[in-house]
Amino acid sequence: MNERSLLSLIARRVERGNSDELVLGIGDDCAVLRPRGARHDWLLTTDLMIEGVHFLAGVHPSVSVGYRALARGLSDIAAMGGRPRFCLVSLALGENTRTRWLDGFYRGLSALARQHGVVIVGGDLSRARLAFCDIVVCGTAPRGRFLRRDGARPGDRIFVSGRLGGSALGLEQRRGPAWTRHLRPAPRLELGEFLRDHVGATAAMDLSDGLSLDLHRLCLASGVSAVLEREPPRFPGATLEQALHGGEDYELLFTVPAKAKPPAVFEGIPLTEIGFVRLGRPGRVWFRGKPLPPRGWDPFRQAAQ
Amino acid sequence: MNERSLLSLIARRVERGNSDELVLGIGDDCAVLRPRGARHDWLLTTDLMIEGVHFLAGVHPSVSVGYRALARGLSDIAAMGGRPRFCLVSLALGENTRTRWLDGFYRGLSALARQHGVVIVGGDLSRARLAFCDIVVCGTAPRGRFLRRDGARPGDRIFVSGRLGGSALGLEQRRGPAWTRHLRPAPRLELGEFLRDHVGATAAMDLSDGLSLDLHRLCLASGVSAVLEREPPRFPGATLEQALHGGEDYELLFTVPAKAKPPAVFEGIPLTEIGFVRLGRPGRVWFRGKPLPPRGWDPFRQAAQ
Repeated sequence: MNERSLLSLIARRVERGNSDELVLGIGDDCAVLRPRGARHDWLLTTDLMIEGVHFLAGVHPSVSVGYRALARGLSDIAAMGGRPRFCLVSLALGENTRTRWLDGFYRGLSALARQHGVVIVGGDLSRARLAFCDIVVCGTAPRGRFLRRDGARPGDRIFVSGRLGGSALGLEQRRGPAWTRHLRPAPRLELGEFLRDHVGATAAMDLSDGLSLDLHRLCLASGVSAVLEREPPRFPGATLEQALHGGEDYELLFTVPAKAKPPAVFEGIPLTEIGFVRLGRPGRVWFRGKPLPPRGWDPFRQAAQ
Repeated sequence: MNERSLLSLIARRVERGNSDELVLGIGDDCAVLRPRGARHDWLLTTDLMIEGVHFLAGVHPSVSVGYRALARGLSDIAAMGGRPRFCLVSLALGENTRTRWLDGFYRGLSALARQHGVVIVGGDLSRARLAFCDIVVCGTAPRGRFLRRDGARPGDRIFVSGRLGGSALGLEQRRGPAWTRHLRPAPRLELGEFLRDHVGATAAMDLSDGLSLDLHRLCLASGVSAVLEREPPRFPGATLEQALHGGEDYELLFTVPAKAKPPAVFEGIPLTEIGFVRLGRPGRVWFRGKPLPPRGWDPFRQAAQ
């Protein structure tokens, strides 16, 4: 039982509904709605952050839990080239959750929201045997001009932003720059809009669960294979293992046509070519002459270990 | 520590953000957005359903958990006079959750979604130490014509739909019509639109946590007091206690101007006048000459008991 098999079980139960105001349903970083008459498309995404799964009581300060909960959602909006606008916060307080924890959670969340002009417009509140939250982020993109993960075509070149593995390294070290990086990842919102408007990216998604798994997903959605020609750039101190399979870096993974020329650096963030798209078994990623197993973060596999 | 004191703590941390596309933020059954150029206002609501809090493993069949999770969100849309359109489902499977449970959950949810033309467009999936979900429902209402809870004015008359206490009675009996009612409440969507278009309701909300608490909230939001002149109509077999304080009936509570004439019955659902709005301490509800304590369902008070 892994995430993919559960999702296919769900897919059998969920009808592919139709609506003239629905542009993109299940399967990408966001759903895309097109309100009748509206100038923009509206993006909707929802992300869980659960004690014992996405954060650890006693390890992650509550200010970082709130920050990272919203960062996950903002990163999904960035992956679609959108601009985040509103968010809703459903929060369950655990049996041991103190008022101080709640205060820190909202301080972290509000600080990131303010930074990106996101307004908190609602939510729900309850108690539970453990603390968790679900964040809904609502964003906009110019009509029909959002990025999606299923557009990669054979011959496209594959890029990543930033340096990978920092978040996994940080969780291991729990100090220094990598820990800071883990606690306060920066969603690549400006980069997402730049890719949409100036690079002509054919596909994009955010690196939430590790390059090996996320590139596999992008290829699966696009019906293509990929060749990883070189090691991804690593966060200082990170191992190749962490850069390939570590989650929560929240960098962007994107593909461009062979003749496109993305800049080497965007607002201080390196954009590095790491391989190319080719025909082949959908989802297969080649690295050093062998298939790269999609070993990124899967909450269900973690549970089984 | 109860829900209200926690919400006021949160309110201190959450800035009253401003946006020309935001009509209504925190504090009502839904947030209301007005996408630039759009013909409709867009309603957004999110609701938690947590094992051990909102449902009990071994008591609530999974098909009912999925059904009720969506019904909660649909009822919020009904309370605003909206039409539900899309939903997103964030689901955490507990350590003991079987594939069969997941299948039942989605069967129940999909059946209700289909009934109301709601399309499931996204979500998130994880594991946790217990099962829970958060449902996001997105709906529409004609521009500027949604219902809200803060519009009750002195002199308005107070109505409820249906018969109250059935859900609380059902949870106690776990058999018969009240149990069916508990497992499959009917969100009053057609009634919400009727109140919006044909009754001129001044305020409305749904009865999710019990009449005493929800009427208190409506009065608080509107800055008024209320007099409950008669007992609310009871579900057959329900006690007065259950009708006044039992949650999860998902009927509508609404106010109308003194001269408005709602029908006695709408599509088989009785609409019963139960009292009137007056000047006075905001949130205070009078019943039989005494203040009625807002004793409805509060997850935080339950936890403390």
